[in-house]
Amino acid sequence: MQSNSQSRDVFYVSDGTAITCETLGHVVLGQFPFNANEKTFPFVESEEKLEKLLKEIEGSYLRTGEKPLVFFSIVLPQLKAMLLDSPAHCYDVIDNLVQKVQNDTQMTPMPQLQRSRSVGKDSERYFDRIAAIEYTLAHDDGITLKGLEKADIILLGVSRSGKTPTSLYMAMQFGLRVVNYPFIEEDIKRLRLLPEFEIHRHKLFGLTIDPERLTQIRENRLAGSEYASTEQCLAELSSVESLFRREAIPFINTSTLSVEEITTRILEKSGLRRRLL
Amino acid sequence: MQSNSQSRDVFYVSDGTAITCETLGHVVLGQFPFNANEKTFPFVESEEKLEKLLKEIEGSYLRTGEKPLVFFSIVLPQLKAMLLDSPAHCYDVIDNLVQKVQNDTQMTPMPQLQRSRSVGKDSERYFDRIAAIEYTLAHDDGITLKGLEKADIILLGVSRSGKTPTSLYMAMQFGLRVVNYPFIEEDIKRLRLLPEFEIHRHKLFGLTIDPERLTQIRENRLAGSEYASTEQCLAELSSVESLFRREAIPFINTSTLSVEEITTRILEKSGLRRRLL
Repeated sequence: MQSNSQSRDVFYVSDGTAITCETLGHVVLGQFPFNANEKTFPFVESEEKLEKLLKEIEGSYLRTGEKPLVFFSIVLPQLKAMLLDSPAHCYDVIDNLVQKVQNDTQMTPMPQLQRSRSVGKDSERYFDRIAAIEYTLAHDDGITLKGLEKADIILLGVSRSGKTPTSLYMAMQFGLRVVNYPFIEEDIKRLRLLPEFEIHRHKLFGLTIDPERLTQIRENRLAGSEYASTEQCLAELSSVESLFRREAIPFINTSTLSVEEITTRILEKSGLRRRLL
Repeated sequence: MQSNSQSRDVFYVSDGTAITCETLGHVVLGQFPFNANEKTFPFVESEEKLEKLLKEIEGSYLRTGEKPLVFFSIVLPQLKAMLLDSPAHCYDVIDNLVQKVQNDTQMTPMPQLQRSRSVGKDSERYFDRIAAIEYTLAHDDGITLKGLEKADIILLGVSRSGKTPTSLYMAMQFGLRVVNYPFIEEDIKRLRLLPEFEIHRHKLFGLTIDPERLTQIRENRLAGSEYASTEQCLAELSSVESLFRREAIPFINTSTLSVEEITTRILEKSGLRRRLL
């Protein structure tokens, strides 16, 4: 069978969730010109599960005539040896770094099964994370302004500037308690800072966005509406940005940023410390 | 100054969010016996930003007498060279893998600045992800049972079995549209499947949890309540698990699992495909 250089089979394999393998694999493959046909094999902790994977690897090799790429992290030596013996290009995403750290620090690593943010090991971290998610859900979209003293940060911005996904990501990934408050049409006309926010000024952070992008996002939601019109978007953004400047509220433009990038830039600019790392 | 082998300064550095560096660094350092004093430097894209980091590295080296560990991913060669020249043990989390893939595939990589799930490049993915988060928020905790035909999966379980955080993570990380529905006290006494779920049977997935763990979690929320009592937890769990068995609804026990692990196990067991990868 002829190999197709534009496409490769790729497997992410781990004795844990394989989320780290996926993340790293995506970054690495993003630098290569082929399309990846991706498949993930989590919790590969037994020979039985490994056999399933090995069949897929062999199938892929027979079908395409090319060895598939395998990004993996497996601790048990016999499973690892079986995988390395298969007709695949295998990349251990952790081991190489562990060896280098061992050489540099002269300390002996203790390999352990991958447990991402495992509950058993650390119940307090678990509760912190869940509490952050709950607080953030309860304070989404201006639902309530009670309990602001417990907030780590208060995000302000017009509708569809990215507040809700960013808030949830901050809570989930970093354990932060996030309030987000939308400026709505009535506010826009006579924009001022709510009195509730006055004593929490140091927690305020603004999101803004290019008018063209905002129109595009709102059109996606409510096509042809006044809400999505260029005039409305322009008016809202210009009055919100004036408020941010007038009140010296730090802000960033989210137009071309992913949720991860918005979050990281906010942490960087505000100096906010992550509760979970 | 005496070095302290129980503690090391660690920096995560990237021209992107540095989230991949952090994730990988945590896994690697999890195998070593020292405590990590961690600090993250995202968006290191200019000499000016790099200089700040280099000062911290030098300060750490002078203060502790030991080179700090740096997990990094930087594309621009002059910045990378400056970093490698500093008094630190530097680990490029991507480059080594890129070189191996290059050798194995005989394809030339095109290095690019790290852009995690970047918006500019892929607007459709952005909208899919936001739509999944919105759908999932709108269908959290049984708020509504409308639009079930658009759901990718429907999670069932008693209060505090992990439904909400899992649903949000599935939406955020994999772009899945998740409904979650809690069994409440009135349901528990005469437990049956809601008629709304009948035609969506194939989407149903149950979460259960050990009674001791459920009591602990509920105590954390409402100490001393009937709701948190061992009897109540036992009764709810036993009737929910019977329902799962009777109706042949697949389910998992979340007691010792993180949100990432619950999500991955659900995907594995249900065969559900990720919308984003």
